[in-house]
Amino acid sequence: MAKALVLEEAKKLSLREIDLPSGMGPGDVRIAIDTVGVCGSDVHYYTHGKIGPFVVNEPMILGHEASGTVVEVGADVAHLAPGDRVCMEPSIPNMTSKASKLGVYNVDPDVRFWATPPVHGCLTPSVVHPAAFTYKLPDNVSFAEGAMVEPFAIGMQAAARAKITPGDVALVTGAGPIGIMVALAALAGGCAKVYICDLVEGKLAVAAAYDNVEPILIPRETPADVLRAATGGWGADVVFECAGAAASIQTALEAVAPAGCVVWVGMPVDPVPVDIVLAQSKEIRMETVFRYANMYERAIALIGSGKVDLKPLISETFAFEDSIQAFDRAVEGRDRDVKLQIKVAQG
Amino acid sequence: MAKALVLEEAKKLSLREIDLPSGMGPGDVRIAIDTVGVCGSDVHYYTHGKIGPFVVNEPMILGHEASGTVVEVGADVAHLAPGDRVCMEPSIPNMTSKASKLGVYNVDPDVRFWATPPVHGCLTPSVVHPAAFTYKLPDNVSFAEGAMVEPFAIGMQAAARAKITPGDVALVTGAGPIGIMVALAALAGGCAKVYICDLVEGKLAVAAAYDNVEPILIPRETPADVLRAATGGWGADVVFECAGAAASIQTALEAVAPAGCVVWVGMPVDPVPVDIVLAQSKEIRMETVFRYANMYERAIALIGSGKVDLKPLISETFAFEDSIQAFDRAVEGRDRDVKLQIKVAQG
Amino acid sequence: MAKALVLEEAKKLSLREIDLPSGMGPGDVRIAIDTVGVCGSDVHYYTHGKIGPFVVNEPMILGHEASGTVVEVGADVAHLAPGDRVCMEPSIPNMTSKASKLGVYNVDPDVRFWATPPVHGCLTPSVVHPAAFTYKLPDNVSFAEGAMVEPFAIGMQAAARAKITPGDVALVTGAGPIGIMVALAALAGGCAKVYICDLVEGKLAVAAAYDNVEPILIPRETPADVLRAATGGWGADVVFECAGAAASIQTALEAVAPAGCVVWVGMPVDPVPVDIVLAQSKEIRMETVFRYANMYERAIALIGSGKVDLKPLISETFAFEDSIQAFDRAVEGRDRDVKLQIKVAQG
Amino acid sequence: MAKALVLEEAKKLSLREIDLPSGMGPGDVRIAIDTVGVCGSDVHYYTHGKIGPFVVNEPMILGHEASGTVVEVGADVAHLAPGDRVCMEPSIPNMTSKASKLGVYNVDPDVRFWATPPVHGCLTPSVVHPAAFTYKLPDNVSFAEGAMVEPFAIGMQAAARAKITPGDVALVTGAGPIGIMVALAALAGGCAKVYICDLVEGKLAVAAAYDNVEPILIPRETPADVLRAATGGWGADVVFECAGAAASIQTALEAVAPAGCVVWVGMPVDPVPVDIVLAQSKEIRMETVFRYANMYERAIALIGSGKVDLKPLISETFAFEDSIQAFDRAVEGRDRDVKLQIKVAQG
Repeated sequence: MAKALVLEEAKKLSLREIDLPSGMGPGDVRIAIDTVGVCGSDVHYYTHGKIGPFVVNEPMILGHEASGTVVEVGADVAHLAPGDRVCMEPSIPNMTSKASKLGVYNVDPDVRFWATPPVHGCLTPSVVHPAAFTYKLPDNVSFAEGAMVEPFAIGMQAAARAKITPGDVALVTGAGPIGIMVALAALAGGCAKVYICDLVEGKLAVAAAYDNVEPILIPRETPADVLRAATGGWGADVVFECAGAAASIQTALEAVAPAGCVVWVGMPVDPVPVDIVLAQSKEIRMETVFRYANMYERAIALIGSGKVDLKPLISETFAFEDSIQAFDRAVEGRDRDVKLQIKVAQG
Repeated sequence: MAKALVLEEAKKLSLREIDLPSGMGPGDVRIAIDTVGVCGSDVHYYTHGKIGPFVVNEPMILGHEASGTVVEVGADVAHLAPGDRVCMEPSIPNMTSKASKLGVYNVDPDVRFWATPPVHGCLTPSVVHPAAFTYKLPDNVSFAEGAMVEPFAIGMQAAARAKITPGDVALVTGAGPIGIMVALAALAGGCAKVYICDLVEGKLAVAAAYDNVEPILIPRETPADVLRAATGGWGADVVFECAGAAASIQTALEAVAPAGCVVWVGMPVDPVPVDIVLAQSKEIRMETVFRYANMYERAIALIGSGKVDLKPLISETFAFEDSIQAFDRAVEGRDRDVKLQIKVAQG
Repeated sequence: MAKALVLEEAKKLSLREIDLPSGMGPGDVRIAIDTVGVCGSDVHYYTHGKIGPFVVNEPMILGHEASGTVVEVGADVAHLAPGDRVCMEPSIPNMTSKASKLGVYNVDPDVRFWATPPVHGCLTPSVVHPAAFTYKLPDNVSFAEGAMVEPFAIGMQAAARAKITPGDVALVTGAGPIGIMVALAALAGGCAKVYICDLVEGKLAVAAAYDNVEPILIPRETPADVLRAATGGWGADVVFECAGAAASIQTALEAVAPAGCVVWVGMPVDPVPVDIVLAQSKEIRMETVFRYANMYERAIALIGSGKVDLKPLISETFAFEDSIQAFDRAVEGRDRDVKLQIKVAQG
Repeated sequence: MAKALVLEEAKKLSLREIDLPSGMGPGDVRIAIDTVGVCGSDVHYYTHGKIGPFVVNEPMILGHEASGTVVEVGADVAHLAPGDRVCMEPSIPNMTSKASKLGVYNVDPDVRFWATPPVHGCLTPSVVHPAAFTYKLPDNVSFAEGAMVEPFAIGMQAAARAKITPGDVALVTGAGPIGIMVALAALAGGCAKVYICDLVEGKLAVAAAYDNVEPILIPRETPADVLRAATGGWGADVVFECAGAAASIQTALEAVAPAGCVVWVGMPVDPVPVDIVLAQSKEIRMETVFRYANMYERAIALIGSGKVDLKPLISETFAFEDSIQAFDRAVEGRDRDVKLQIKVAQG
């Protein structure tokens, strides 16, 4: 029995004792959870009880953005030891699947992912996890930052798939948490400048506090025009579409340069009209992103080196006891809230 | 003054004398046209008088798929000589533009392209063209095949952008002329097998006459099911969408494998709903194709080596005098007609 | 106890009973071996007792190019069933290593590989192997061809790493078994034509029996000259260096085109002088090959489709009882011997 | 007649009047030179009279790292106007060559390059240059920085060819001017951290003044050991070999990670022994660099954004009158001298 933040059903959260299996295999580690971030998907399960085909049919622990301390290691684990400060990749793929053999374990159809029904998340004081998906934090990276690695890894995946050439100019559509993560990853990943557009001034203000992130307030400004003006008429070398709205999808295609790349990060609820002929007329490449693979070490390296500073994005930290408040604050959706975190560990 | 097949306006063709500039620069060659293929875009200008933003506002010579014989070379031309049998890339980009410097001269916004208003095409006995875009044919490649290089180059561009890994399994949606060109380029370019789907049995029959091209008749068979069955449930490594219809666009996303690639070749008239979340769930890459760049020599090499045989796709050849009949036959759109050609040269 | 071809020490082979562990895990299959090819590395262990740092310090079963029939499957195995005809990838990597997570399990430092000391090979009637590295053969691919998949996979790896663009012209230096495998993979993988050079006419004759493989006999002809003549002075788009000799390494750099690719397949015993400035002057890319990863299914697809015919390369088949003779014949190194095989299965 | 720094023959420089052609074509601009950097190749021509096959047989103006002000534009020039502050790519390729059509105009065999015999350089008050290879400087980039774009573009080319994945850890061998340029480009281009090794402490000190550049002093430390320690035993994702010495070439192969990349930037005078089998055992990719193509705009964007600060690398600036002193100082080769510049413009 362990205490945990349990989503009983849509709109109903309890912080209560729950029965959890506790055995660990030879390749596993046991981790005392320190900090867990609240993700939009957690919130969506809370408010809707499902995301697409994934339905919460029985009580499920929320949370998948976590850091903590190793307290026990399995017999085969060599690269971790009790006391190591770590963060965890919330996916457990079948490593002998065809996808995993190809290096894209994120698209293994059998992957299990924390807080995706029916798999429990990590908003509980202790979890068992494969050592292969548990990563050591450098001394200069805090637990709070460690719990930011998960959302930042999505930005990293987007930046990696874009195949940025050093000095690229990028546009990010949508200045929500993921849009900002993508902007920071794109800058750290080689872009000279990242423009970011949104309808909400408060969101842009958070993003624009970073060097070389240039805000575009819609509809006062038109992103495609801004990008053309900034690039001698050429357009954005890369567009990261992070809003998932029909208008921003069209913006992406208009703003991208000939032979450029659009990365589809935002997830529109329904199929969206896409102007394929416009895309063809510039012969662009389009990439999609599904979570991440092989990005945690890279993300940690960039945070540890100081090239990426995620601390300004942690808007508020709640005690474990106040977890439900944290979720209710997340439901509010304040403009300047980027990431709310829950400190699970005591002291 | 030269005789030419002139599109006077929508639905009105004349084979008549027309005044053409005849000067040539130091980097140009003069070519006696031998054979010209009839392309769907030529036919579309004939029937509609325009394609998207390109409107026939004054008489325009049709034709851009051509082969011929060099009769004169400019002072700076080193790699061609009178008597050389050649085919011509119908685009004339500005080679100092940013796009051209990057190697993607096909997306140079200032490119001039034969038979795209207001630029004349080549259905006339003699043309002047840059030597840099004029390519020598090997002895074992006929003029008729030479005039097939242009449409085949589109298939080559699609195959090149797919970045085929040897042994890939591909699906082509749409068994029209371009779909077949793409299928042959994909096979020559490394695919083990290419499935091709269409609603029309006659079109599939032409395609399926080639080794390793497997027809899928819709709706009797469902392409995504066929591909999964053929690949142990994995799906097509590459899908070349060549139909441009909403249904086939959805088919492409359903049939493609995790981490696979969809190449958008078909040109839907209007924006089409695309299930971006489905694409993301497999983290696929999507490529688009705009004509071709640097593909002519490769296309000629594959035809010359015998790896690609385009001769069965030449459905009928018309004399220059019968050019208008050729176009009217093309308008008919017979199921088994892949390519109609016009022999401009006498004898 | 099982009968096996055992290398007792350098130069000493026995066909004798040996004690083998026989347990199998839930992800394993047991395979009745049908056919095993004799590889140059097997022969090298026979003649020298070691390859680089790998030394035969205790009796080791030889053989790693194998096909057979599944006779038992572990509890977790879904894609194979008893009776399935299969071939096996001879490597067993740690699938949770960093290399494996990246999709390059071939460079996992902890990989175990058949017939590489101290790991036993498969020249014995029955082996246990991970199902994830056991691949079903189509009905039209024989056991003999199945046992050719392993060496062909090296050719596939080389062709894949070259990133062939359809219509490339390639040069292969060295017409030994691997050179020929590479040539066939390069052709199937998109090359229009493959030139292959060697000092030995008999080897070239075997290669040149294939369509679009053009022999170059050294020193009668100079490969770089032949390639320039064949490509309008440009050079080979890709050179596969398969001889591992200083002269052929220089040939590779001379014959490759600007912005082309050289794939280093041959393994020179000692460091070899490389003209780095020559490589830089054309700004070429150089790739290396270490065995293969994710190539078996692709190789089988190309053999099954008929695009690649390996049967002419099987020079002779020996009964299991005559295994030592097979090795002695291999030591002879006859010019026209490409692959010798041992039929382990009875009848 | 114009004043210019003329290399009369090896070891003999004059600052004197020289007769220069002054006509300009419709695509050209005339530029008043402001600042010119002294490059190692200029110095090598001064001391040796030749570099490889390029021999100074008649008086040649030195200098190819330049910035200036447009004073006149040809009839076809649209993107530049008199008064524009610019820097110039010193190459003039034939833009209709095969290499140029492919986007790799730097390997066009017919390229003309400033201060490479028999082509004059730009150490003279005024030059005529193609507008297509003349790039506008933003207001916040000084002429001195503009004249640094040329050497930095080599670093950019190296970083681009490495195909850095965001968060990579790199090693640069050799802390000379090019090594430092490469290190800065690699960091700006996505590396989390760049280690740089050299035998000379003073050179390392200049490099290590930058954030995330970590010095390795040889032989006190062994680069491969340092990299392994820094990466959990994995090695450097990318090694940029910039020393061109046999020892550093071996270091590169030892320090690089499995599936990593080595970029050969340094130019060894003679062929150097390369341990190909070591490279193969990790299945690394090797890239080479020849000058740069399509890198100027990217380099300027990174300098303009402040992501790259080249100002600390400008060690001293000489008046045009003192040009010969500048070269003699360069010949000295002081440890902390990275770049010496000559201010050609008055006042």
